[in-house]
Amino acid sequence: MSRIVQKYGGSSVADAELIRNVASRIARGREAGNDMVVVVSAMGKTTDELIALAHQLVEQPDEREMDVLLSTGEIVSSTLLAMTLKDMGHNAVSLTGLQAGIHTDGRYSKARITAVEPQRIRDELARGNAVIIAGFQGVDSQMDTTTLGRGGSDTTAVALAISLEAHVCEIYTDVEGVFSADPRVVPDAVKLDRIGYEEMLELATYGAGVMAPRAVELGQVYGMPIMVASAKSDGTGTLICKEGSMELRNKVSGIAHDTNVAKIMVIGVADQPGIAQALFEPLARANISVDTIVQNAGINNVTDITFTVTQTDVLKALSIVEPVGKSIGAVRVTSDESLGKVSIVGTGMQNTPGYAARMFHALAAEDINIQLITTSEIRITCIISKSRIHDAVRALHKAFEVEFQTTG
Amino acid sequence: MSRIVQKYGGSSVADAELIRNVASRIARGREAGNDMVVVVSAMGKTTDELIALAHQLVEQPDEREMDVLLSTGEIVSSTLLAMTLKDMGHNAVSLTGLQAGIHTDGRYSKARITAVEPQRIRDELARGNAVIIAGFQGVDSQMDTTTLGRGGSDTTAVALAISLEAHVCEIYTDVEGVFSADPRVVPDAVKLDRIGYEEMLELATYGAGVMAPRAVELGQVYGMPIMVASAKSDGTGTLICKEGSMELRNKVSGIAHDTNVAKIMVIGVADQPGIAQALFEPLARANISVDTIVQNAGINNVTDITFTVTQTDVLKALSIVEPVGKSIGAVRVTSDESLGKVSIVGTGMQNTPGYAARMFHALAAEDINIQLITTSEIRITCIISKSRIHDAVRALHKAFEVEFQTTG
Repeated sequence: MSRIVQKYGGSSVADAELIRNVASRIARGREAGNDMVVVVSAMGKTTDELIALAHQLVEQPDEREMDVLLSTGEIVSSTLLAMTLKDMGHNAVSLTGLQAGIHTDGRYSKARITAVEPQRIRDELARGNAVIIAGFQGVDSQMDTTTLGRGGSDTTAVALAISLEAHVCEIYTDVEGVFSADPRVVPDAVKLDRIGYEEMLELATYGAGVMAPRAVELGQVYGMPIMVASAKSDGTGTLICKEGSMELRNKVSGIAHDTNVAKIMVIGVADQPGIAQALFEPLARANISVDTIVQNAGINNVTDITFTVTQTDVLKALSIVEPVGKSIGAVRVTSDESLGKVSIVGTGMQNTPGYAARMFHALAAEDINIQLITTSEIRITCIISKSRIHDAVRALHKAFEVEFQTTG
Repeated sequence: MSRIVQKYGGSSVADAELIRNVASRIARGREAGNDMVVVVSAMGKTTDELIALAHQLVEQPDEREMDVLLSTGEIVSSTLLAMTLKDMGHNAVSLTGLQAGIHTDGRYSKARITAVEPQRIRDELARGNAVIIAGFQGVDSQMDTTTLGRGGSDTTAVALAISLEAHVCEIYTDVEGVFSADPRVVPDAVKLDRIGYEEMLELATYGAGVMAPRAVELGQVYGMPIMVASAKSDGTGTLICKEGSMELRNKVSGIAHDTNVAKIMVIGVADQPGIAQALFEPLARANISVDTIVQNAGINNVTDITFTVTQTDVLKALSIVEPVGKSIGAVRVTSDESLGKVSIVGTGMQNTPGYAARMFHALAAEDINIQLITTSEIRITCIISKSRIHDAVRALHKAFEVEFQTTG
């Protein structure tokens, strides 16, 4: 008998028929003799509907209240799944994040898990129950509900798999696995059989929406293998795990892209110590993730600082940066929300020259202008016009496709 | 500065505009210098929608899961109200039943409050927050969510008013107060200025839907005055409190009616000890409230037992009574769901003969057949055909209208 932790995303429980499908999958796991712990997201568009409900009342809803509000979406789906399983003759019980022992810090809407105390889960498993857990949520030290932000249910699942010592964490979603590029953009994208944590992390961080980067990172730190697969088929999906052999490393794993990119430029500031700190400390305090930062070489001790944030954060970021810009003597602050980024990712790029040149060549051949470039050891990212993102993904997939790791 | 406990029903928070109206009322209470504790029901038809969602999946949903599911409705409305207040510039915080310290027994869907530990509420008041509490819910000794059944939010409010030592518990609803009869049935029904707990209890128990009987009972036991008023107007409503003067007691307070009545008849059972116990113990265990019970005088040691339950409970009740009927040798078990009951209520009836005769006369004059009669010291109830209920209420209101307590 093994202990299996599964997670089902919102599109996998979007209606009664889909919930029954998920319940049947859990039932099969139990019939095979496994302890089943299942993390579930809110049904379909529930979270968006709750956000819209709040925005009917308030333009900038209080974050504490918003977290409590949004947490109800996952509670609803967890109870529906548990009662469906019971109706099928399987012992099952739903637990909230609080009951599942998911402790977090107090950063509403972007909380981080600080500890998992799964005693109640162990008790329910010992009683023979399938345990259905409302994902995306935890409680802070005051026992107030927090939510874990984007992909929070993935993080819940991986954290639980680790603390319950499961052999694998299974993430079920609406795609067959991790692909060499987004199949909606590149029809001949191929499913990868396995991928290393680091590559997956870069792909996820740079826009491949299959899994939340935080969950991948957590899996990496604790060495928990993560299987990403479709909730609708019995395919094997993609296993995210430790790197493979030397040969497998010598490849590009995939192309990621993201159209939720905005650029903020602070123009004409003094090129002196303390300027970057003055800009980015208040953004960090406001929980705004700054991605790429570029500072041009100063001419006459005056420089421009450009950075990117998500489009979602751009208004909040501007409201912080504009007064700071004034106080540090910037000529002006401008922004551009019509951007996207495209990345090639692969451990094979490490210490292998030529990947950047091939990437820039492929983009130039399509007449795509590169606005900013940022790299890591295993990734090269170009920020370009949002309108050309799909062209860029297709061109890069074609340029690198012999390198993708697949048995297909 | 006083401490005010208010409760707003589902129809008072059914949409964004209504929620803003409630927030403004709470804001006015704060501006007048009061500590505000507010219990809120689920928005409009939310609870019904959640029930329908569960029934899409399962015919008889598990009660534990159902309670967790339904509790989300009140959590949603409490967060929306709190964020609206914050947006208006008032400190406010929402609390779940768990956080508000509402402890209950473990009878899912009909839980009783066993203790209130409002330390968190006191802390939030001390911090200057309006405290918005999700009604209708508590937690059992396992910290599992329970719901309090019909009118549960009223009960939450009265229990909190008592434990927070408020001067009055204000119940805001969609009617102006307690009327001498349902104004939808009797257009010239009058609003009562005040009414005793006992009379209100009888009115509420016997179908006047303004307030949950349990909440009235709780108010009575602890002497907590309850003001029932409209959330939409500034009228004074009806004060439910200790009995008034001798003269005021000498009256009929109102006419209650209820069309949610079903009758079950167990025909031809032995007239011997233990039969009633055999029938009603299993119903009690299944949490089915039995209302009127009538046992005919036995002839040849054979008798019929008739009792009423709500129409909602009739299928569940029959599934219990039919096998019991067989085991105690009943000839047959029959049921009739097309019934209603009409009651006259007033402390003035105590020790004053003639009220029953006047009631039966008024019904006979309308050619309404009485199937069962049941009385208390301050109430006379007739069970009649559902189709004649409205005629009966109008006839009785006319017959007793000089007696209603009102300043109008």
